[in-house]
Amino acid sequence: MTLKIYLAGPEVFLPGFGADVFAEKKRLCAEHGFSGISPMDGELDTAHLPPFEQGLAIYRGNIGHMRNADAIVANMTPFRGVSMDSGTAFEMGFMAALGKPVLGYTNVTAGFAERSDRYYLASVHAGTDPYTAGTSIERFDMADNLMMVGAAAEAGFPVIATKVEPGQELRDLQGFAACLRLLAGKSL
Amino acid sequence: MTLKIYLAGPEVFLPGFGADVFAEKKRLCAEHGFSGISPMDGELDTAHLPPFEQGLAIYRGNIGHMRNADAIVANMTPFRGVSMDSGTAFEMGFMAALGKPVLGYTNVTAGFAERSDRYYLASVHAGTDPYTAGTSIERFDMADNLMMVGAAAEAGFPVIATKVEPGQELRDLQGFAACLRLLAGKSL
Repeated sequence: MTLKIYLAGPEVFLPGFGADVFAEKKRLCAEHGFSGISPMDGELDTAHLPPFEQGLAIYRGNIGHMRNADAIVANMTPFRGVSMDSGTAFEMGFMAALGKPVLGYTNVTAGFAERSDRYYLASVHAGTDPYTAGTSIERFDMADNLMMVGAAAEAGFPVIATKVEPGQELRDLQGFAACLRLLAGKSL
Repeated sequence: MTLKIYLAGPEVFLPGFGADVFAEKKRLCAEHGFSGISPMDGELDTAHLPPFEQGLAIYRGNIGHMRNADAIVANMTPFRGVSMDSGTAFEMGFMAALGKPVLGYTNVTAGFAERSDRYYLASVHAGTDPYTAGTSIERFDMADNLMMVGAAAEAGFPVIATKVEPGQELRDLQGFAACLRLLAGKSL
């Protein structure tokens, strides 16, 4: 049976909903004997709904995709802050609870502690975000918060960090392909 | 039977691991007939472990706490970026997958779209984070990414947003108490 992989990540926010990236991810999945499920698959026409209901419809669609999938490969590249996309983090937790393999990659090689340090240096100068000043920074040699990295580790997978061409952080798929190779090497 | 509530949020990063805030959350839980479970409960001594293994031990502890809990009330206040703490987002997804009620509150009243807009204005000026320039901003009248807000909505709960004293964003518990009242009002 073909293993179905949920393609989690912030590529949905790229122009054209990242259709080109998802197409390439699906091609790479097929190359490894897997089937890729994109968050945009079977997207309903929600334009007639009020904004909140639109968001809820997309939520339900993604939940359905995850229940239908056998594993998740998440793009954990930092998104709009120190951490990865929060919706993708939610999805890694969802799949971990279902006992399905959790894999992830990031296209930023600086670790979580280093990025957090940088954030505080910058936010002190900018005077933004005063209320997290003084909070501690976790230093666990991890690529992001321990919940996501822990979920991958418990499933037997490292988070793959790749140095990519500047500007290609949301598009480069070397780390994604490496995750597929790891998954192909495991008997599930 | 007393309903056990997992107290998710970035308070663990406050000085003293947020022990004062967790104590107050537990007191409020008891006041409503609930039992609060803090991420710091039963914390193992991990100081002898290498950093990565320390993080993994904490991951396992939190997973155990969530399996033992009946519901989650998450502090969704933005943390080190546009979105809430990513580890807490993971935990909301984990509990949603287990079919347990998901509730959340935030102590920043600006919505997700407004905060994202601000982030892009600032990051363009600062020249930081060039690779997310041009990504779309979801406008669903939500407090954060649709996965977390959707999980709460599906469980029948709004995300409670409260305007609090500046500087108290990680400490104010009005929204937390409001979540407990909502939960007490539901027959589970």
